[in-house]
This record gives sequence, C-alpha cells and structure tokens, in this order.
Amino acid sequence: MVKTHWASDWIIGVRVWVEREGQAVLGEGRAELLAAIDLEHSITKAAKAAGISYRRAWTMVQEVNEAAGETLVEAAVGGKQGGGAQLTPHGRLAIEVYDKVRRPLVDSAAGSLRQAILSDHR
Amino acid sequence: MVKTHWASDWIIGVRVWVEREGQAVLGEGRAELLAAIDLEHSITKAAKAAGISYRRAWTMVQEVNEAAGETLVEAAVGGKQGGGAQLTPHGRLAIEVYDKVRRPLVDSAAGSLRQAILSDHR
Repeated sequence: MVKTHWASDWIIGVRVWVEREGQAVLGEGRAELLAAIDLEHSITKAAKAAGISYRRAWTMVQEVNEAAGETLVEAAVGGKQGGGAQLTPHGRLAIEVYDKVRRPLVDSAAGSLRQAILSDHR
Repeated sequence: MVKTHWASDWIIGVRVWVEREGQAVLGEGRAELLAAIDLEHSITKAAKAAGISYRRAWTMVQEVNEAAGETLVEAAVGGKQGGGAQLTPHGRLAIEVYDKVRRPLVDSAAGSLRQAILSDHR
C-alpha cells in the first residue's frame, strides 16, 4: 500500500494484490517476504530482513501456499540453523509479475494526482 | 476495486482511495454515489442509480462529510420528494481528482499485467 499526499492533509492510497478463488495470495507484505526468502534462502533471515517475527513469517508462508493452491515457497523445518527455504519457479514468477504490475501503478499515482490537481486548477 | 484476470484463476486487484487523518473519505462506492448526487441533485435518485438503499446512501453521505472534515455533500431532509442534495465545489473537486487518479491506474493494470507475463515468458 502506498500513500501520496494530496493538499495538506488528504492522502491517496493505492493497494495492489493477487488473489485466487477469493483468497489473497500476494500483497505487499507477502511479496516482500517472498523476495527476501528468494535472496536469503532462509525464513529466519528473511523474517529479519522484512522486520517481522519468525513465527509470523512462517505463518505467512503457509498462507501463501494455501491461497495459491500450490507450493510457492518450499520450506524445511529443523537443523541447527533452522531449515532452508526457497521459492519454486512459479513462486519466483509470481513475485516478479506482482512487482512488475505494482510498481508502475504506484509510481504513476503521484504523477496522476499532480496532473489531476493542476488541470482542476487551470 | 478492479480485478484483472491473470492465468486461469489468478486475479490482480487494484484499489484506490482518498483518506484524511487515517479515515477513508472516498473509495469507489462513495465516489460513485457522489457523482450520482451531482447528476441527480437527490439522494433518493442517486441511491437508486448506485443500486443501494436510501438509508445506506444517507449514511455514506454523513460518513464522507465527517471523514473529509468539511461538507462535500449538502443534503436537506424534508419536503414531499425528500430534500434536495448537491455537491459543494470542494466535493466536486474531490470526485474529479479521485477519478482522474483512479482511472489511469485501473486502465494500466491490465496492460502492465500483460507486459509482465509476456516478458517473463520470453
């Protein structure tokens, strides 16, 4: 969710998400976590990078896989350092597509707002 | 909120809203109602056009004015036909700016999705 200020105290918010059968698969928080897992290959490290608890990250991973109806994140429990984790090919595709859709929308929100206000005050 | 299909059963959703001091002022439903009031000059007729009850529309108008911290919709109760209603200049500006920001975002979501999927499958 990204917010752009409009006038002194008005804000425009934009939210982009992926859903399947009415269930949220990816939003900003989950996409950020999955991207961190793709980088760190560890839920523990990814949770730290995303600023959330291990427990929360683990739950989010289960929710993502369940909502997707397929495994987007493979995670193993156990070992001294905790198990490793990685995205499946479809998991990586999902966050790539999500980011490619979200970024231009969020970037253009501020521009559209500026144009809309300017044209209204002509 | 607009949803664009992605693959067979994945959907990208986009939501745009205006808020002030953490309170939602305008979303799609409220903006649609205000646009109808601007056209009909009547909450009764605007509610019918938006497919909601008069009571719901009246409540939404109160919520909009309260969240905005100023009157965006002037509504009068009473008379045989129910009181008239109209947008204040700032109310009209608000729905115009909202629409000018929302429309290009929603329109470009489908295009971005198509491009993202194509470039991922190159």
